[in-house]
Amino acid sequence: MSTSPPDVPNAIPKRAGWREHWYEIIFEADTPAGKLFDVWLLAAIMGSVVVLMLESVEDLDEKFHAWFDALEWFFTLVFTVEYTARIVVARRRWRYMFSFFGLVDLVSILPSYLMLVIPGAERITVIRMIRLLRAFRVFKIASMIAEARLLREAIIASRSKIAVFLSCVVIAVVIVGTAMYTIEGTRDDSPFTSIPQSMYWAVVTMTTVGYGDIAPQTALGKALAAAMMLFGYSLIIVPTGILTAELATSHQDEPPHVPPPKAPTLACPECMAEGHDPDAGFCKFCGAKL
Amino acid sequence: MSTSPPDVPNAIPKRAGWREHWYEIIFEADTPAGKLFDVWLLAAIMGSVVVLMLESVEDLDEKFHAWFDALEWFFTLVFTVEYTARIVVARRRWRYMFSFFGLVDLVSILPSYLMLVIPGAERITVIRMIRLLRAFRVFKIASMIAEARLLREAIIASRSKIAVFLSCVVIAVVIVGTAMYTIEGTRDDSPFTSIPQSMYWAVVTMTTVGYGDIAPQTALGKALAAAMMLFGYSLIIVPTGILTAELATSHQDEPPHVPPPKAPTLACPECMAEGHDPDAGFCKFCGAKL
Amino acid sequence: MSTSPPDVPNAIPKRAGWREHWYEIIFEADTPAGKLFDVWLLAAIMGSVVVLMLESVEDLDEKFHAWFDALEWFFTLVFTVEYTARIVVARRRWRYMFSFFGLVDLVSILPSYLMLVIPGAERITVIRMIRLLRAFRVFKIASMIAEARLLREAIIASRSKIAVFLSCVVIAVVIVGTAMYTIEGTRDDSPFTSIPQSMYWAVVTMTTVGYGDIAPQTALGKALAAAMMLFGYSLIIVPTGILTAELATSHQDEPPHVPPPKAPTLACPECMAEGHDPDAGFCKFCGAKL
Amino acid sequence: MSTSPPDVPNAIPKRAGWREHWYEIIFEADTPAGKLFDVWLLAAIMGSVVVLMLESVEDLDEKFHAWFDALEWFFTLVFTVEYTARIVVARRRWRYMFSFFGLVDLVSILPSYLMLVIPGAERITVIRMIRLLRAFRVFKIASMIAEARLLREAIIASRSKIAVFLSCVVIAVVIVGTAMYTIEGTRDDSPFTSIPQSMYWAVVTMTTVGYGDIAPQTALGKALAAAMMLFGYSLIIVPTGILTAELATSHQDEPPHVPPPKAPTLACPECMAEGHDPDAGFCKFCGAKL
Repeated sequence: MSTSPPDVPNAIPKRAGWREHWYEIIFEADTPAGKLFDVWLLAAIMGSVVVLMLESVEDLDEKFHAWFDALEWFFTLVFTVEYTARIVVARRRWRYMFSFFGLVDLVSILPSYLMLVIPGAERITVIRMIRLLRAFRVFKIASMIAEARLLREAIIASRSKIAVFLSCVVIAVVIVGTAMYTIEGTRDDSPFTSIPQSMYWAVVTMTTVGYGDIAPQTALGKALAAAMMLFGYSLIIVPTGILTAELATSHQDEPPHVPPPKAPTLACPECMAEGHDPDAGFCKFCGAKL
Repeated sequence: MSTSPPDVPNAIPKRAGWREHWYEIIFEADTPAGKLFDVWLLAAIMGSVVVLMLESVEDLDEKFHAWFDALEWFFTLVFTVEYTARIVVARRRWRYMFSFFGLVDLVSILPSYLMLVIPGAERITVIRMIRLLRAFRVFKIASMIAEARLLREAIIASRSKIAVFLSCVVIAVVIVGTAMYTIEGTRDDSPFTSIPQSMYWAVVTMTTVGYGDIAPQTALGKALAAAMMLFGYSLIIVPTGILTAELATSHQDEPPHVPPPKAPTLACPECMAEGHDPDAGFCKFCGAKL
Repeated sequence: MSTSPPDVPNAIPKRAGWREHWYEIIFEADTPAGKLFDVWLLAAIMGSVVVLMLESVEDLDEKFHAWFDALEWFFTLVFTVEYTARIVVARRRWRYMFSFFGLVDLVSILPSYLMLVIPGAERITVIRMIRLLRAFRVFKIASMIAEARLLREAIIASRSKIAVFLSCVVIAVVIVGTAMYTIEGTRDDSPFTSIPQSMYWAVVTMTTVGYGDIAPQTALGKALAAAMMLFGYSLIIVPTGILTAELATSHQDEPPHVPPPKAPTLACPECMAEGHDPDAGFCKFCGAKL
Repeated sequence: MSTSPPDVPNAIPKRAGWREHWYEIIFEADTPAGKLFDVWLLAAIMGSVVVLMLESVEDLDEKFHAWFDALEWFFTLVFTVEYTARIVVARRRWRYMFSFFGLVDLVSILPSYLMLVIPGAERITVIRMIRLLRAFRVFKIASMIAEARLLREAIIASRSKIAVFLSCVVIAVVIVGTAMYTIEGTRDDSPFTSIPQSMYWAVVTMTTVGYGDIAPQTALGKALAAAMMLFGYSLIIVPTGILTAELATSHQDEPPHVPPPKAPTLACPECMAEGHDPDAGFCKFCGAKL
């Protein structure tokens, strides 16, 4: 809203009323109140996620079960109020409720209420960790948006390169895995019990994680493993170089990048979609007036 | 075939008949039917490889042995039909049969039939995993060709750099391996039982895999290992930088790259070789008309 | 001091006396005596840190306890003399004493004296390792300053990129950790005992450290772990590329970099701050005459 | 010798005789005979190193002890003949004998003869692995020289950067090691038995090797370790980027690089030093005529 220049005669008139006021606070982050709301929401999300984590530690759960329970209910109530408020102020309620973030909002609070109805459903409550995804919505606050977009663009631009790289790695994993199963699998106490197991070992080794729970024990197996490591290590350098070179070249060709100020935080009032251009008058996804 | 321009008076005449029709479907990927064939073939290859993998898991094999056997015979029959078709439609049969992919095709199906004749040959059936290599032939479908070629070119261009890098690593592995064998190998229960074993440890460590089945136990051995890790880690940065810099420079010098459309999927009708230029009238490997 | 050009008429007059002489030796590194002082101080710091390290090895401590004790007292006395000298020659004593390095200097020697008063305080003496931080002050000797600044600038410039990257990694760690806890945590002897424990495993795996004390044991857990490794590995390449491209571009835009000679070693006589421009006549932090 | 152009009137006259002939074969690699000599010498070095390696494997040594002994004596005799020949044809014998490679040549054969005199000296024979270093002299054959020089130059050019990077890593290792010793070392069965041990763990972790023989067991220790891994991982990206950017920039500035043909293989007849410029008339190290 705030991006429409004042000198344009047919500027879209600001909708009045408390709903519009709260809409800006809850869904956008252009106003100080909207920013404050997002900061507190982020704090609540983080707090709630930390409680869920600590609850899974048996020692802590035994000692502080009552505290964790109380905090969990506090956060559940906060999120319930927030969810209700979002439904109330959203311009197209159903669209919000069935949007990605609308469903995440629902799934974040539902398991707590389900626990009251179905007593043995405690295992399912881990699904509440999905709350963390809500943090993504809040991250629109920061100047991180531009960085995150750059990261996403780089991944999309190098999509097919990553695909080729992963294909080569997967084929290498299958071949090396089969070879190691053939070489090492014949011994009785060998950890290479099957081809999938050997492939798991190959992935663990090629990514240089190397747990050591599965490791070659015959001389031939060790020689093959060493060759795979050295070869793989050299080849890692090549795709890194290609991607970097590509990025360096593309950076130099493009004109100096001016990030659009504030615009990324503008959400479509109808479908909640973001990412509109700063001069857009209508949502590019559903055609609603911005 | 389809690349010969229509305005050239002495254009190579299209060979007629069903064999030519099926040749294009089976060996090339320019027509919709050819693409469809490749997609289904890829699915069959993947399915067959997955069955072979799962068959090697004892638990699953006990439960679903009949299913795996049936599926394996189904895929074997499919590949047998395909192999026969390839022989029938190929222009130079013997050349195809002794080409790399012709042999892979044969080895992919032979073990299953051998099992009928020689009962105890089950161990050998793992060789059927070579079917995976057939996927490479099918990959000519995708736009991946250009990416894969870039990757291959980068590896070839930096061949001598990788060789120097690997030489240095190998020499470091031998020297550090010998040193660790001398330092650690004197203790009775030391895992550094021989120089090759110590070299295996050096490779596992320098590539940062680090299984932990072999690890230094004396103070001197640990100090040497730590020095090797730190030193090696710093040196990794240098070759990466050199290669990237080289690639970045070469990218900027070369004119914008226009990938030749379709041409990479054209196979020589005689020797099955690929990679002909789009304006080539004759196979550059065997001289046959394209 | 030595950077004020001789032809400027109103050059700041050199303060006379032995205090000024010793100030230049102890706090600066422009004169041969100042450099020598720094070299010896660095040697003392290193020696003292090595003694503290070796003291923590039980076997060595039993054999050489008297030696270590004597050396430790020797270094403590040296540092006490140095600390006293710094207080005496510093222009603003209190400011020095409460500056970062002033406090480090104090904490470096205090525990040794505390041990005389409070007998059981031996555990606390490990705090003397903070002496190592004093090495940073001495590093102003070398041409390393320019390099270190470049490193620091690069980290600061890519601060928000690192933040986005770390955010993504942390969110991935939480999600994968929770998923692995749900998949693997139900087995009785599983090492995935809680969500924090699983998150620790996720960090150890994503950074490719891979201790192996916690590793998936079910087929599903292994598949998820392998997917995470491969995916994570590909994504590592992208941020590396972005950063490198950015640095390569920024390097080309900026004018050739001429490092200011000697200036970085000039410390403000009042507040001990460094980093003044070579032509600065007054401290940019406290306004004192340089 | 062969690089002196024929049209220069005062060209250094070629020394005649068989000694000069053999000098070119043994010490240089410009002639076909010289190249052949180097190839065979490399083969002998490699063969001898492989025999020494396999000899250290107990199982193999028991079975093939006689073979290994015979081969070892064969190689020792070959190297003795070669060493004698080098002394005979070298222009300044003593200088060669006390040059780096001269000493390596001696140490490569001496232990075998010492074993005849001193019976119990078998452990010392591992020193013969130093033969591998002789391979470096032979590597002057290949076009690898240019690559190796590029690698060496890159390392030298980024020497101070690597030093700063290593300093930071070492300081981080000391601080984290001390912190982990304080946190984890108090438990009775903790593997963090001393500060050096903890520092070894820190190096193993920061280089992402991660053996797993030493791993944190307390919650606090795990949290610190995870933070160190994540932080360290992000920081790795920065120095890589800096170095790459520097290399990319320097590559673009410098004129196209024309490697001097053949010259690198020219050795000074007096002091055996290499690396003379192609137009050099005198050794830049000892002043002898080239």
